[in-house]
Amino acid sequence: MASRVATIDSAVLSLESTTPPQWVGVVESNLREVLFDHAHCEKKAAAAATHLLVSYVDRPEIVRALTPIIKEELDHLELVMELLDQRGWRLKGQAPSAYGGRLGLLVSRTEPDRGIDRILVSALIEARSCERFTLLAEGLADRDLAAFYGRLLESEARHFASYLRVAECFAPLPIVKRRLAELAKEEARIIALPDPLPRLHSTPER
Amino acid sequence: MASRVATIDSAVLSLESTTPPQWVGVVESNLREVLFDHAHCEKKAAAAATHLLVSYVDRPEIVRALTPIIKEELDHLELVMELLDQRGWRLKGQAPSAYGGRLGLLVSRTEPDRGIDRILVSALIEARSCERFTLLAEGLADRDLAAFYGRLLESEARHFASYLRVAECFAPLPIVKRRLAELAKEEARIIALPDPLPRLHSTPER
Repeated sequence: MASRVATIDSAVLSLESTTPPQWVGVVESNLREVLFDHAHCEKKAAAAATHLLVSYVDRPEIVRALTPIIKEELDHLELVMELLDQRGWRLKGQAPSAYGGRLGLLVSRTEPDRGIDRILVSALIEARSCERFTLLAEGLADRDLAAFYGRLLESEARHFASYLRVAECFAPLPIVKRRLAELAKEEARIIALPDPLPRLHSTPER
Repeated sequence: MASRVATIDSAVLSLESTTPPQWVGVVESNLREVLFDHAHCEKKAAAAATHLLVSYVDRPEIVRALTPIIKEELDHLELVMELLDQRGWRLKGQAPSAYGGRLGLLVSRTEPDRGIDRILVSALIEARSCERFTLLAEGLADRDLAAFYGRLLESEARHFASYLRVAECFAPLPIVKRRLAELAKEEARIIALPDPLPRLHSTPER
């Protein structure tokens, strides 16, 4: 597991910051709340990809890229719910981190920029999840849970790469890369903003 | 294939009307438009089930029933797009039938009735699709396409049954059945309303 975890680093994922290692401690101290957040994140990832599919269903190459992502997010949702079941925790609604809403504000209102932005924001959320799952896989004292995150992080990296390919349906690669770099800078700013809730995409005070 | 097609009839599906057989002729005369509509219907079915999942993600039994439905709708979307590909037809946006919008108006605005209604409306759309796919499986001159619909109609019948089970998460079976009977009457009225577009859920003038 350790060697597999080491193969994906922040730079490959285009991220412009790294998560402070004490975030793993925040997760461990608030495990139930973070696992609930994880379930809600998988749900939102499936819903966001479904919305993209609805918007661009007349583009077969986009549909073909999105359907396996949606199915895998649903698989992950089921896995997280199993994990909650095993611990006797029943999923409840709770306030999300501010991260997703703040990223959403970066999305252009007009096409084709809107399509590229929606896809690249999804890509960056997958990238950040991958980076954080790597920390959990390496750092969680509960080695079963660590192994669980070790398995999931590969999918997140694959989804990141799939979203980049989808973005290329809208614009040539140099344009996609330039916009990705801009959005990655914003993502790094946003993930570091104060957010008191222990969540997959919030950052503890240093 | 024929014996399999014969096993699902309108009564089992709780439908209060049968589609006039000349509808198959309308489909054959407008095949491209109806296949486009089919793709859009699979997309909308996946999106509607995803919206239900987002609304009721804190109910594990509902999530477990919905995730396989969403995945199968996405599989069907891919199958229809393959079919379009084979015919050299590129999916485009087009006006939907009035059916879905009219059914949507039947849904209560307040919980828990809203949840039951959303689920039962989805169930009835699956039931109507199953009934119509049976007609296509039996009546289309293109036997390959007939066989395609013969395979799909079994899923629609399964989804109908799954949705009924989901509705029982909200209310006891007698209440679910009473509301299903009310909505089925409305569905029969709505599917018979004039709608000039050749669609999976429109009805030709007699």
